[in-house]
Amino acid sequence: MSDSLEAEATRRAAAMYAEDLASRSLGIEITGIAPGRADARMRIAATMVNGHHIAHGGYIFLLADTAFAFACNTYGAAVARSADIVFVESAREADELVAEARERTRFGRNGVYDVTVRRVDGAVVAEFRGYSRELRPPAE
Amino acid sequence: MSDSLEAEATRRAAAMYAEDLASRSLGIEITGIAPGRADARMRIAATMVNGHHIAHGGYIFLLADTAFAFACNTYGAAVARSADIVFVESAREADELVAEARERTRFGRNGVYDVTVRRVDGAVVAEFRGYSRELRPPAE
Amino acid sequence: MSDSLEAEATRRAAAMYAEDLASRSLGIEITGIAPGRADARMRIAATMVNGHHIAHGGYIFLLADTAFAFACNTYGAAVARSADIVFVESAREADELVAEARERTRFGRNGVYDVTVRRVDGAVVAEFRGYSRELRPPAE
Amino acid sequence: MSDSLEAEATRRAAAMYAEDLASRSLGIEITGIAPGRADARMRIAATMVNGHHIAHGGYIFLLADTAFAFACNTYGAAVARSADIVFVESAREADELVAEARERTRFGRNGVYDVTVRRVDGAVVAEFRGYSRELRPPAE
Repeated sequence: MSDSLEAEATRRAAAMYAEDLASRSLGIEITGIAPGRADARMRIAATMVNGHHIAHGGYIFLLADTAFAFACNTYGAAVARSADIVFVESAREADELVAEARERTRFGRNGVYDVTVRRVDGAVVAEFRGYSRELRPPAE
Repeated sequence: MSDSLEAEATRRAAAMYAEDLASRSLGIEITGIAPGRADARMRIAATMVNGHHIAHGGYIFLLADTAFAFACNTYGAAVARSADIVFVESAREADELVAEARERTRFGRNGVYDVTVRRVDGAVVAEFRGYSRELRPPAE
Repeated sequence: MSDSLEAEATRRAAAMYAEDLASRSLGIEITGIAPGRADARMRIAATMVNGHHIAHGGYIFLLADTAFAFACNTYGAAVARSADIVFVESAREADELVAEARERTRFGRNGVYDVTVRRVDGAVVAEFRGYSRELRPPAE
Repeated sequence: MSDSLEAEATRRAAAMYAEDLASRSLGIEITGIAPGRADARMRIAATMVNGHHIAHGGYIFLLADTAFAFACNTYGAAVARSADIVFVESAREADELVAEARERTRFGRNGVYDVTVRRVDGAVVAEFRGYSRELRPPAE
């Protein structure tokens, strides 16, 4: 892969992160970025726990969705169109979770990305698949 | 529907909400509950906005997932097994969102629930479908 | 709903069915049509049974997908972009299945449709959700 | 991987194929099998074409679902619980399609499998994800 594509992906991610108050407020860190790929990390806070005393599935989704968003924006501005998630194992307060987003295929302005969320001990917490759509460049 | 089923659904939801720090921390309110149904409401806070200056899809999912969780727990303890969401229209800071979860079908210990997320002006923001599984009662 | 919209939906469905060798070869009948809605019916043939001695899930999907296709084409030419299905109860050889496709929401050129597949005794066999995209009219 | 697991997977697939009238009637061949993996191949027949003059999405799903079924049954009897598919590029009459099913994760009696459907020229036609559940062994 050319240096310039790598550099462009990194530059885009940094600009996006600077503006992404939602991810930063939750302490999500982007720990890896490359064209079509992104890794994100989050610690389950006390305020992310639901009535079953486990991490609210919404926060697991949110972490996966963040990794997906960073991955699909490495090529240009893109938005999430839809996503699905299966919850494999529950996470608990103070667990460190890592989400790895990987491009599966792209066609036209569409993309399909797989995201696996794991605990740092390697156990799979969730499998997510996201569908993105690139925005059109503004007309000149 | 019998009064006792309604009363049981309401009682279960109140107990669940009391323990659900995740939903309460986000200011999510449960505004309606009945067997197989739940309505939830949330205001998009400044900390829920992403790098595209719109509500992070993860928070839209989280609201829908909360309504789904309350609906599928009206019969007994159940967990979300998987879910999918399609993003229809974006939401912005200060928007009030309402999620309506409705049971679609139940079979064995499984349930399928549809959740529509709308702005208070009625515009659809997202369509969510959740799959639940009832927990087994503890062996006696 | 205006008579002309109903008439247009019926006319479009008839033209589509005439060309749809796949559906006709399986004996699928379109038993109802209206804007955003279609009903389809199919009998499980001996050649639709898999190694577990039940109807191959692919044929259940195919019936639901056909109803979805007819429903989303009532407004204009549209294609299926993606779909998901949950299998509720199995079907057996000679079972008559009915699929009811109903529009859930439309936005831009996109549509979301729910399809329930039932046996004629009313038991739910599958719940399907389809996402469509309208084709652009040819440039003039 | 041990020879005995490979042999068991192959033995199970052969027994399943012998009984699977649905797949055999469509000319689907199982071209590869290993624990958690299966490859299937099908030629688009004239009777698989819909009113848009392209392969009916239901048949694309059916091929993917067959590869998935063979992959998730390599360990023991299992059934498809749900699945989703995104249609990437259309296929036409006489196209040869290949579906590669790969296990993504397993937990408890559940499995998640990814299936990519390609034309023999390598173009991706669809991405499918299937969720399986192993059957309990009969009580003794």
